[in-house]
Amino acid sequence: MFRAYYLLESEGLIVARPRSGYFVSDVEGNRSGSNRGPARKTSDAPGIADDALLRLMDSIKYKNIVALGSAFANDSLFPMSGLWRCFTSVARNMDHEKMLSGFPPGDEELRRQIALRYLIAGAALPMEEIVITTGALEALTLSLQALTRPGDTIAIERPTFHGALQAVQRHHLKAVEIPVDPLTGLDLDALAVALDQHAIRACWFMTSFHNPTGATMSDERKRALIDLLAAHQVPLIEDDVYSELYFGTTPVRPAKLYDTHGLVLHCGSFSKCLAPGFRIGWVAAGRYVHQIEQAKCVAAPPADVPAQLAISSYLKEGGYDRFLRSLRRNLASNQAQMLAAIRAYFPQGTEAFAPRGGYFVWIEMPAHVDALRLFSATMESGISIAPGPIFSATGEFRRYVRLNYGHPWTTVVERAMQTIGALAAQQRHVS
Amino acid sequence: MFRAYYLLESEGLIVARPRSGYFVSDVEGNRSGSNRGPARKTSDAPGIADDALLRLMDSIKYKNIVALGSAFANDSLFPMSGLWRCFTSVARNMDHEKMLSGFPPGDEELRRQIALRYLIAGAALPMEEIVITTGALEALTLSLQALTRPGDTIAIERPTFHGALQAVQRHHLKAVEIPVDPLTGLDLDALAVALDQHAIRACWFMTSFHNPTGATMSDERKRALIDLLAAHQVPLIEDDVYSELYFGTTPVRPAKLYDTHGLVLHCGSFSKCLAPGFRIGWVAAGRYVHQIEQAKCVAAPPADVPAQLAISSYLKEGGYDRFLRSLRRNLASNQAQMLAAIRAYFPQGTEAFAPRGGYFVWIEMPAHVDALRLFSATMESGISIAPGPIFSATGEFRRYVRLNYGHPWTTVVERAMQTIGALAAQQRHVS
Repeated sequence: MFRAYYLLESEGLIVARPRSGYFVSDVEGNRSGSNRGPARKTSDAPGIADDALLRLMDSIKYKNIVALGSAFANDSLFPMSGLWRCFTSVARNMDHEKMLSGFPPGDEELRRQIALRYLIAGAALPMEEIVITTGALEALTLSLQALTRPGDTIAIERPTFHGALQAVQRHHLKAVEIPVDPLTGLDLDALAVALDQHAIRACWFMTSFHNPTGATMSDERKRALIDLLAAHQVPLIEDDVYSELYFGTTPVRPAKLYDTHGLVLHCGSFSKCLAPGFRIGWVAAGRYVHQIEQAKCVAAPPADVPAQLAISSYLKEGGYDRFLRSLRRNLASNQAQMLAAIRAYFPQGTEAFAPRGGYFVWIEMPAHVDALRLFSATMESGISIAPGPIFSATGEFRRYVRLNYGHPWTTVVERAMQTIGALAAQQRHVS
Repeated sequence: MFRAYYLLESEGLIVARPRSGYFVSDVEGNRSGSNRGPARKTSDAPGIADDALLRLMDSIKYKNIVALGSAFANDSLFPMSGLWRCFTSVARNMDHEKMLSGFPPGDEELRRQIALRYLIAGAALPMEEIVITTGALEALTLSLQALTRPGDTIAIERPTFHGALQAVQRHHLKAVEIPVDPLTGLDLDALAVALDQHAIRACWFMTSFHNPTGATMSDERKRALIDLLAAHQVPLIEDDVYSELYFGTTPVRPAKLYDTHGLVLHCGSFSKCLAPGFRIGWVAAGRYVHQIEQAKCVAAPPADVPAQLAISSYLKEGGYDRFLRSLRRNLASNQAQMLAAIRAYFPQGTEAFAPRGGYFVWIEMPAHVDALRLFSATMESGISIAPGPIFSATGEFRRYVRLNYGHPWTTVVERAMQTIGALAAQQRHVS
C-alpha cells in the first residue's frame, strides 16, 4: 500500500536537469572495498539515470508490476487494518485540544514512546530532544537546512540514497562523496581525508542497513566515526530508518549512542517498520533541537496529528515488539529465498551482498551487464528493479542493481527473479 | 480551533536573526496613498518585531487570550462537526486505491470542485492546471521555488503578509517592496518603476483582501497589473486565500482572470473559508503547472489524503455556498461591531480601513501610539493584537495595528476593544 509515496519519499526526487557541478568524489582513502573506483573530480552527470528514476516512480501507478525496484516493503507485511482502526477512532474523537497536542515538537506520548525505543537500543535520550516530523525525509531536510546555507559543502555517501543527491541540489550545496563498502560500511579513512581537505559543514550518513548497499558499520566503527566528527566538531545527520529491521535478536545500535557532544541529529521513521503511509518520522536533534523545533514551526505544517495519535495509540496497546519480531522473521526468510533465486537464476559472476537486516540486497552483476539497459528490459516484462546509477551523482554503479525482498515470496516473485536473470544473461550476446 | 497552526501558517515564521540586507524599498511611484513613506534603501531591521511575532504565536497556547491578533477566524464560525464527520467516514473506508487518488496533482473530484469555484468567479480554468497542496503556504512556497534561485530578486508588498518576508529569507532571495494603499491596493506606478530598475523574477501579491491592509484592487487595476507583468513577461504568484469572504453579492475576481499568458500562479486554500486545520490548498499554476506538479512530487509529501477526500465529499454534499453566505453575513456584522467599538473606545485621530470582505481591519493609530508597546500592554491584559511592524522587513508601520473580527461578537470582545483603546490613550501620557 502507498508504494507510490514511499518511492517518492525514499527513492528521491525527480530532477529537472542533469546532476552536475556540485559533486566531488576526489577523496583518497583506504581503497580496498569493492565500490572504490579511482579518485576523480566529477562535473557532468548522465540524465539517463534520472530518466530511469522517473520511470521507476511512474511504475507505481501500474498495479501489476512486480515492484522489486521499490524502496518500500509490501503493505501486506504491516498491521494496516489495526492502524487504520486506531486512525478512525482518533478522527472520531478529534477536537481542538487534541489537535494542539500534535503541534511541534509533536505529541508528548508519541515522543515518550520513541524515547523508550531509544532506551531499548541502549541510548538514554530525553524526549525533549525529539521532534516529530512528516516522515524521515522532512527530518533529514530540516536538519540539513538548520546546518547549512547555499554554497556550503556536506559529506554524503557513494553510493547513496538519492534523496541525499536531490537535497544537495535543491539546497544549492556542494557534496563530497565518501565511499561505502557493502560489507564494512563507510570508508573512515576517506572521511578523515575529506574533513582535512574540505570545509565540511555536516555529514549525511546511513550507518545501519545503508541504502542501497545494506552495509552496517560495526559498533566500533560507529564509535570511531563519532570520535572523528567530534574532533572536527562536524555534525552528523544520521539517517536510520531501517534499524528496527535487524535479523536475529541483537538490536542494531545507532552511532548516536556514542555521541557525547550532541553533534548527532538522528532521523527515524515509522514508515519502514510499522506504518507505511502515515508519514510520521522524527529527529533526535542533540544540541540542535531548538533550531530544528523552530524550523519545524516555521517552514512546515505540523506532522499529521490524527496519524501521530493513531501510532501513539497503537504503540501503547503493546503489540509493536511482537509485530517487529514477526516482521524480522519474514524479512530474513524472504532474503534467504531471494539469495537462493539469485544463485539459481542470475548469470555466473553475480555477487550479492546479503545484509543482516532491512529488505534490500545490493547485487554486483557480471561485467557485461548494464543496469540501466537491464532496467529497461525488465520494465518491459512488468518487473521493476533499482539500477545502480540512480544512487550516484555521476552515473556510477552501472553493474549494480538493488532488489527489494520486502514482498511475500510468491511464484510471481520467483518467476520475476528468473526473468531478471535471463535478461541479464542475454546482455552478453547483444553487447 | 487549530488557531495555533493557522497563526504559524499565515502569520509566518520565526526568524532566528534580524531581517536584514535583503530588502530594498527604493522604488519611486505615485505617492498619494497613506502608507507611502519616503523612498529609502533598507539594510538593517529591528529584531523587536520578530520578538512580538514570537510572543503572538506563543500566545496561542493560552486558551483565555482574546485573540484579536490572530490570523484565523474562530472555529465556531465554521462547520467543523460536519467536516470531521466527513473525515471520519473517509478514514473508515481508506484503502490503497483511495490513498493513491490523493497523490499529486491531487484528488480529481476535489480539483473538479475547485475548477467549478473558478468558473463561478468567472475564470474558466482546466482542472489540469490545479495542483492540490498542504495549505496555501505550500502552494506559495512551491511557486516561489519553481520561479527563483538564491540571489534572485522578487517583488513583494509593503506592508505584507510576513510569510512572504520569511520566504524571501529562507530562499536567500532579494526583495523589492511595492507600497500597498489600504484603499486602492498595490501601487502600480511603483511596480512599473521597479520592473524597469530591477531584474525581477517574480511577484508575490495579494490582490484581494490584502493582509494586513484589507485592500482589494479594482478589476480595472487588476487588469492593468496583469498587462504590466505580461509586458515584462514576469510571473505573478497571486496569494488569494480570502477572496470567498467578500461582503454583499458580487464575487471578487482574481487577477488570474485577466491572464492570457499563463503567467499567474493563483494560490488558494480552504483554511480561511471552510476547513481550518485541514491544511488543503491549491495552486492554479498556468504555464508552470508541470514544474509545480513535479516540485510537489519531489519536495513534499502529498497533501493529507483523508482531508482532501473529506473536503471533496463535503463540497459534493452541496451546502458550501449556503455556508459561505452565512459566513459572509456574520463577518460583515462583526466588522460593523468592531468599527463601532473603534469609534467608541479608541483615541481621537484613529483611522480604521474597513475592507469589503475578509476579517481584518487595519488601523492607523494617533502619532503618539507605538504598536509594539501597545502589543506588550494588551498582552498583559490577555488580549493579542497584530502590531504593524511584524508586516514589514524594516520595522515600519509602528503606528498601525491589525485586528481580527472573525470572532463571535461577545461582551469579552467588546471589553477587549475598550481595553485596547484605553491602553492606547495611556501612551499619550507616558511617551
